Amino acid sequence: MQEVKPQERIVFVGAGKLATNLSVALQKAGYTITQVYSRTEEAAKALGERLGCAWTNCLENITKDADLYIYALTDSVLPHIASLPIGNKEAIHLHTAGSIDKDVFSTKKRYGVLYPFQSFSKEQLADFSQIPILVEGADEGVEEIITRTARNLSEKVYKADLEHRQRLHLAGVFANNFTNCMYAIAEEQLQKAGLPFDILLPLIQETAHRVETIAPRKAQTGPARRHDTNVMEKHIQLLQDDTSLETLYRIISTNIMNHEA
Amino acid sequence: MQEVKPQERIVFVGAGKLATNLSVALQKAGYTITQVYSRTEEAAKALGERLGCAWTNCLENITKDADLYIYALTDSVLPHIASLPIGNKEAIHLHTAGSIDKDVFSTKKRYGVLYPFQSFSKEQLADFSQIPILVEGADEGVEEIITRTARNLSEKVYKADLEHRQRLHLAGVFANNFTNCMYAIAEEQLQKAGLPFDILLPLIQETAHRVETIAPRKAQTGPARRHDTNVMEKHIQLLQDDTSLETLYRIISTNIMNHEA
Repeated sequence: MQEVKPQERIVFVGAGKLATNLSVALQKAGYTITQVYSRTEEAAKALGERLGCAWTNCLENITKDADLYIYALTDSVLPHIASLPIGNKEAIHLHTAGSIDKDVFSTKKRYGVLYPFQSFSKEQLADFSQIPILVEGADEGVEEIITRTARNLSEKVYKADLEHRQRLHLAGVFANNFTNCMYAIAEEQLQKAGLPFDILLPLIQETAHRVETIAPRKAQTGPARRHDTNVMEKHIQLLQDDTSLETLYRIISTNIMNHEA
Repeated sequence: MQEVKPQERIVFVGAGKLATNLSVALQKAGYTITQVYSRTEEAAKALGERLGCAWTNCLENITKDADLYIYALTDSVLPHIASLPIGNKEAIHLHTAGSIDKDVFSTKKRYGVLYPFQSFSKEQLADFSQIPILVEGADEGVEEIITRTARNLSEKVYKADLEHRQRLHLAGVFANNFTNCMYAIAEEQLQKAGLPFDILLPLIQETAHRVETIAPRKAQTGPARRHDTNVMEKHIQLLQDDTSLETLYRIISTNIMNHEA
């Protein structure tokens, strides 16, 4: 049996964390990355050399000889660059952002979105096989190609429009960013008692792994879940020098009490 | 070299999740569990048979012939039972609660606290070696014995008085209970988009593991960290049918923005 390699040649517009992770993963999956663009020479060169492909820091020098143009840019820059005449008419233009509409490419003919839902770093490259990827195409034909590309990277590919992506992004803010903020507040409370953050790590891991098998509302424990107002009042006293933390404690406790599984 | 086995004989007052985990771990560490008490015959018998020791559901029948009495009871019941004449005068009486003072045993001569900081279940017994244990004794001699007992279970033993334990308990509520509530809110947002909770699991694990090596304030990502008010306003619009969630979003985002690492 002969392996069928992906035919598409890809240009990356952007060379940040997401571009680095996604381009390396696509190259491993058999795609040809032909060129990398970044605003800064340093970033363009670094990723170009990592991939062993051409690179440029000049938008005018982006090759027209590719099949896919993947824009991995910050939300504030994407709309402007997406409107420029990059690539050729038959190429597919994709962005990778959760909160931006596919129609940011409406001056192009074939376009869509490939949104990998994970937090990336340049140092430790991600394994894409378990990373959820949300896809959307301007039409069915384009969507099929984007879906195939995503499936070559990950087992978890979902079709999702802007509203779905935004809702997922919001869910991610709660599950990731806000959770991390809870860890930070916990660390600051421990500092007040002269205790190290390490002491919380077993509990943090236990909580994160429990929801792999039990729905979070069913996994809920703690004083609010038990309606233990004595303990809650003692905690609120400990927070009395910070009204916003006190309010936070009350709102989250009320949310827990109002949603018993 | 001959192994020196712990000499203490232990009675457990209580047969719940914590009592089950702690008694099994102490037995494995070489301690003799002589008897288990629980208010219900069912629970007393189940744990007694698990440990192969005597059991009773009658407080009057608790043996006086033991060295350590460990009270693993809910906070609301502990003060009453701690005041009863259980055991003998020379025995050490310990409770295992985060938010209760050691002086709940002030009618006794020798007493203290051994507070294992983890969330337990009866089904999956915990490995105590990495679980932080906080200890406190009524006097130095007692504290030494309690500390030795804790060190026979775990590598992470800390001396801590009531104020420290309460602060740790509060930190645990943020890092565990409130984090779990963030997962639950995220799941409800995903349900609005018809997306499964599974989609968040890689991000949840990534976030929980990142703080093993990076301080949470430094690990912070997301729109609030980037001061991306466009995205934040879109998220707040998505929450406009629930004022408490909207307030929650604003308070946590402000906390993130006010504490940049």
